[in-house]
Amino acid sequence: MVKATVVGASGYMGGELLRLLVRHPEIEEIVSVSRSYAGKPVSSLHKNLYKVLDLPFVDLDLDNIDSDIVFFAAPHADWFAQVPSLLNRGLKVITLGGKFRIQDPVLDHRVYGGYEDPSLLEERVYGLPELYREDIKKARFVTNPGCYPTSILLGALPLKGLVLEDKIDFEKIVATSISGTSGAGAKPSVSLHHPEMCDNIRPYNIFFHRHRPEIEFILKDTFKKEVNVFFTPSIANMPRGIISYVTLFSSEVDIDLTKYFTAFYKGEPFVRIICGDDENVPGILEVVGTNYCDIGVNLDESSGRILILSAVDNLIKGGSGQAVQNMNIMLGFNETTGLDLVCGHP
Amino acid sequence: MVKATVVGASGYMGGELLRLLVRHPEIEEIVSVSRSYAGKPVSSLHKNLYKVLDLPFVDLDLDNIDSDIVFFAAPHADWFAQVPSLLNRGLKVITLGGKFRIQDPVLDHRVYGGYEDPSLLEERVYGLPELYREDIKKARFVTNPGCYPTSILLGALPLKGLVLEDKIDFEKIVATSISGTSGAGAKPSVSLHHPEMCDNIRPYNIFFHRHRPEIEFILKDTFKKEVNVFFTPSIANMPRGIISYVTLFSSEVDIDLTKYFTAFYKGEPFVRIICGDDENVPGILEVVGTNYCDIGVNLDESSGRILILSAVDNLIKGGSGQAVQNMNIMLGFNETTGLDLVCGHP
Amino acid sequence: MVKATVVGASGYMGGELLRLLVRHPEIEEIVSVSRSYAGKPVSSLHKNLYKVLDLPFVDLDLDNIDSDIVFFAAPHADWFAQVPSLLNRGLKVITLGGKFRIQDPVLDHRVYGGYEDPSLLEERVYGLPELYREDIKKARFVTNPGCYPTSILLGALPLKGLVLEDKIDFEKIVATSISGTSGAGAKPSVSLHHPEMCDNIRPYNIFFHRHRPEIEFILKDTFKKEVNVFFTPSIANMPRGIISYVTLFSSEVDIDLTKYFTAFYKGEPFVRIICGDDENVPGILEVVGTNYCDIGVNLDESSGRILILSAVDNLIKGGSGQAVQNMNIMLGFNETTGLDLVCGHP
Amino acid sequence: MVKATVVGASGYMGGELLRLLVRHPEIEEIVSVSRSYAGKPVSSLHKNLYKVLDLPFVDLDLDNIDSDIVFFAAPHADWFAQVPSLLNRGLKVITLGGKFRIQDPVLDHRVYGGYEDPSLLEERVYGLPELYREDIKKARFVTNPGCYPTSILLGALPLKGLVLEDKIDFEKIVATSISGTSGAGAKPSVSLHHPEMCDNIRPYNIFFHRHRPEIEFILKDTFKKEVNVFFTPSIANMPRGIISYVTLFSSEVDIDLTKYFTAFYKGEPFVRIICGDDENVPGILEVVGTNYCDIGVNLDESSGRILILSAVDNLIKGGSGQAVQNMNIMLGFNETTGLDLVCGHP
Repeated sequence: MVKATVVGASGYMGGELLRLLVRHPEIEEIVSVSRSYAGKPVSSLHKNLYKVLDLPFVDLDLDNIDSDIVFFAAPHADWFAQVPSLLNRGLKVITLGGKFRIQDPVLDHRVYGGYEDPSLLEERVYGLPELYREDIKKARFVTNPGCYPTSILLGALPLKGLVLEDKIDFEKIVATSISGTSGAGAKPSVSLHHPEMCDNIRPYNIFFHRHRPEIEFILKDTFKKEVNVFFTPSIANMPRGIISYVTLFSSEVDIDLTKYFTAFYKGEPFVRIICGDDENVPGILEVVGTNYCDIGVNLDESSGRILILSAVDNLIKGGSGQAVQNMNIMLGFNETTGLDLVCGHP
Repeated sequence: MVKATVVGASGYMGGELLRLLVRHPEIEEIVSVSRSYAGKPVSSLHKNLYKVLDLPFVDLDLDNIDSDIVFFAAPHADWFAQVPSLLNRGLKVITLGGKFRIQDPVLDHRVYGGYEDPSLLEERVYGLPELYREDIKKARFVTNPGCYPTSILLGALPLKGLVLEDKIDFEKIVATSISGTSGAGAKPSVSLHHPEMCDNIRPYNIFFHRHRPEIEFILKDTFKKEVNVFFTPSIANMPRGIISYVTLFSSEVDIDLTKYFTAFYKGEPFVRIICGDDENVPGILEVVGTNYCDIGVNLDESSGRILILSAVDNLIKGGSGQAVQNMNIMLGFNETTGLDLVCGHP
Repeated sequence: MVKATVVGASGYMGGELLRLLVRHPEIEEIVSVSRSYAGKPVSSLHKNLYKVLDLPFVDLDLDNIDSDIVFFAAPHADWFAQVPSLLNRGLKVITLGGKFRIQDPVLDHRVYGGYEDPSLLEERVYGLPELYREDIKKARFVTNPGCYPTSILLGALPLKGLVLEDKIDFEKIVATSISGTSGAGAKPSVSLHHPEMCDNIRPYNIFFHRHRPEIEFILKDTFKKEVNVFFTPSIANMPRGIISYVTLFSSEVDIDLTKYFTAFYKGEPFVRIICGDDENVPGILEVVGTNYCDIGVNLDESSGRILILSAVDNLIKGGSGQAVQNMNIMLGFNETTGLDLVCGHP
Repeated sequence: MVKATVVGASGYMGGELLRLLVRHPEIEEIVSVSRSYAGKPVSSLHKNLYKVLDLPFVDLDLDNIDSDIVFFAAPHADWFAQVPSLLNRGLKVITLGGKFRIQDPVLDHRVYGGYEDPSLLEERVYGLPELYREDIKKARFVTNPGCYPTSILLGALPLKGLVLEDKIDFEKIVATSISGTSGAGAKPSVSLHHPEMCDNIRPYNIFFHRHRPEIEFILKDTFKKEVNVFFTPSIANMPRGIISYVTLFSSEVDIDLTKYFTAFYKGEPFVRIICGDDENVPGILEVVGTNYCDIGVNLDESSGRILILSAVDNLIKGGSGQAVQNMNIMLGFNETTGLDLVCGHP
């Protein structure tokens, strides 16, 4: 039994962490940190936790945290400077913000600015268990992947090791992702005002989204090639879920990709390959509320185009669920503990 | 051809007025007033009007308005004090806020506070054409009904004059109304944040909503009786539309209310009585985008309970459309001019 | 560890039962019965169960069922005649259809027709644990309450025993309920076609809904009075959830109903009283995905009107979750086993 | 004033045609043809037309049609064989189905099968006014473009004539389109059942969609090059609207595409170029209910990738509105007559 602290517990990502931790059999204590809401009941904001987690938010006091693990679900800020001291005191740290996900000091600084600490950047492990599980086991400091990168990377990774790999043009990857609105956070704004988003779908950050260099960095690290991902995110009229459409061009076509993908993820508890007939494509409804990533793959016979469809719950496998998965790995629990979530139908 | 000014043109109600006026064949000029957005293009906020009304918002300058009619789509504020001077200069005025809808100085002041002018309150005509058409024809100053009151009053009015009228308990009226989220306005807030309202339905103001005294005042004026309306509004996961469920108790049951309602509204261009079998009840989809109020009525055979269902588009018949209808009447145009709106299916 | 059979496993209610049972720690085997889909994988229909319950549907063979408990999630049909034999063989039975919920042979037959067996009707226990827990403990045959009745009855029950009870007019109860579309079942139809229901809210069965006599029967049994519930159901643009607005008239007003309601449900694991300020009313989002019933209560000071708001997930507390709760009670498990569901935010 | 017949008037596309024609000032008579619903009031199905078009559907009798123009909004069937005789009698014909859109007998037959008539195929004009206006003026027989092709083609056409044109790789076009559910038609099905589509987004026909060869055919005809469009359609949780994401690869980057696109469509009444900053991208809400196609364009500076976003209402510019636009051109009316539709906000 361990103690966990969630910094940034007032946001959607933090709230989802609380929800998962409160039912996690290895967690005996949860500290919900929020500067803005300190003193107020957690359930005054996260009403789903009424009678479930009847504790108040507390102010940030990292020096006196008595926890085994600290999740930072808030954007990186001045608290980041305290991570080294937490690690030195023996705590494990998982960050859910973007800082340090890109393990390139120049690029990281350009995209996320602010804090710099080469040793921390060097030590960090990118928390995609399907790719870096062994590193995560040994890690003290894990940066949890972004929601879009989780869906796109899990979709593209099985191409590694195929005969086909060398025949793919990694400089012409097109990734179009549609997200539920919770991905944009809990803060009200005109563009997320219900009357403006109901029945709508809206591309945003079409010039540049911060997840693009993250996706490209991991793909480069994996495939050892130049990579260009033309990434266009959108939000649509649904509270949760991401579906990514990833197109790659290859010169090779004679291959059963579904079979390869299935073999690639054999034994993975949270990746499901969906057979790609028209009745069975990955869908939002089957992943929302779960830690699954559902993937379908399709080859265009006439041209070598590969279409990968990949769906996750943006707040679970794309965030808090994956963070709990990382915690389980880091602390030596069974990887699926507290994550055996099955969504309903419908 | 006349000139129209819309004060409060940046809100949803004001924007809808602009949309209706821009296609109104008797309107030759529209002035869009918004203090906050003065100088910015109308279509930067109301993107639907891009290439349709390519003018900027202007600041409020009521002294120099060169218009035939002024619509106040903003909450009443200091500008209210200028209404008498506008009227004296020969302009017609239609207000879409709540102030002065209740023609009782004490009650009006209790609910809406602020400005007091007995002569203005006395002169105002309540802009429900189906009830006060003759008064509106002669009016200089019309207060446009609230969205909920429009649906509830149009539903209840046909009870006037029935044999049944004396047998209804007007002190036990239950009115439950469900509104689309645009009814709560264009200003972002946590409770209207898309992720919070998607898939949701939320009662609000369950202790007191300002439309209750408005509804009760008009019903008292109509039926000359004590009236109690237990009114509970909610917003639901749809951008537009209101459906009201109005229950009244009577001791009389042997009557064909659909027939009476149909006869009552014979000739009314914007009220449709929907025959009340289960396949044909008033619905949101048939009124959204139109100036119609669709009404269904049902008698519980065993008990004398009357259920009235009444649906409107909250921004059109429940607001801007009705305001244009009032303008048409006040200025001597055909009452339906600019309002022959038919919604699509679906 | 016990074995469970779900008859009618292809519907939404049956599918939700499978989902709950598959994670229930006391269930070692699940048989999914569906005549129409026998032989096909459960997950071909309930795609949420892919890699979770990888078994086929089987045909109905009640004579050879090797289970401890049988859930009938299908409408009653010829299989009902086999219930006595199941009971005689020592199996427990929970039905989720309407048949025999109304423990009045004439009324039951009028509403649900078909099968008649006075002894079965007499033996049946109405599966509302908050009201009949002691009977359920001893029961072999439980009829699970309807979704609307669950929300309305749990809302109204706390009035029992109040000083106020005698001052309420039980012949003038107005209950308006809004349900998510899953409540109408998995079978496609024009009125539930997505383009027709998106952005919509539609009253139905406004002349008579089969849940009305069920609600009235239990209220009569509880309050020992004549009862008339004017019940109007609607479906709205959300997949799940019910909120009921229950209005009752009383001559007594000087009472803190929230306090009484809270005391009434003290210790109940699945009922939460929501303090009724305008920021805290029961909502769909907080109950969907859980077995909770959230209740708020409000007194109109000027008139003695009582407004009760009551929200449930129609498929969980309004169906399969309550059925599992009943199973837990009948089989001597902890009542909350397998039901510690917390929904996300948002 | 002319007379119009709509064959297939019971579908969504046909119903939308009726709605547009009933308010079209040059239409004096509308005949609503539906075999299945002959004799029933049009408004029993299209409830939006209650009190607007109070006529019954009639059976198909093309020999005795007394109309100036016939719209075929139904899938092609045996009636297609009568088109030549209609043309010979001097009637104009617009088909809204896919047959003959691809002016290649082999390809047309492969995709749409059935009827063959080389002369008819040769004569047909593809009804995209922005591309073939002069041909439409002279045409007797117009095939109205598909909804997806309309959005994709209008987005891609401005590339014609640019210096850039020769530097684009037309064999690697990626087009991802998201449609509202009305695009899938009025017929209920499991995949369009409200509980299955609410909150969802679902790719379909990922192996092959019939609009792909249509898009490729017109692009080849325009650019005189080999063309490959990797087209993936999806439906999302909204009743109407299409947004298409079209990616093309070029070796040229130093060009202001927004300026070119704006110049290209100068004078076009129904195409709006949206300046591509992040606050101003094409959106569903601004086109639904109108005949506009809103287009945004973006160049990826580092690579020459062109992203075109294009939004239409699938039933209006993507169907019935464009058909009315074609009718206006064919019959010599002002092209915008009956199409000055402005949608509301929100």
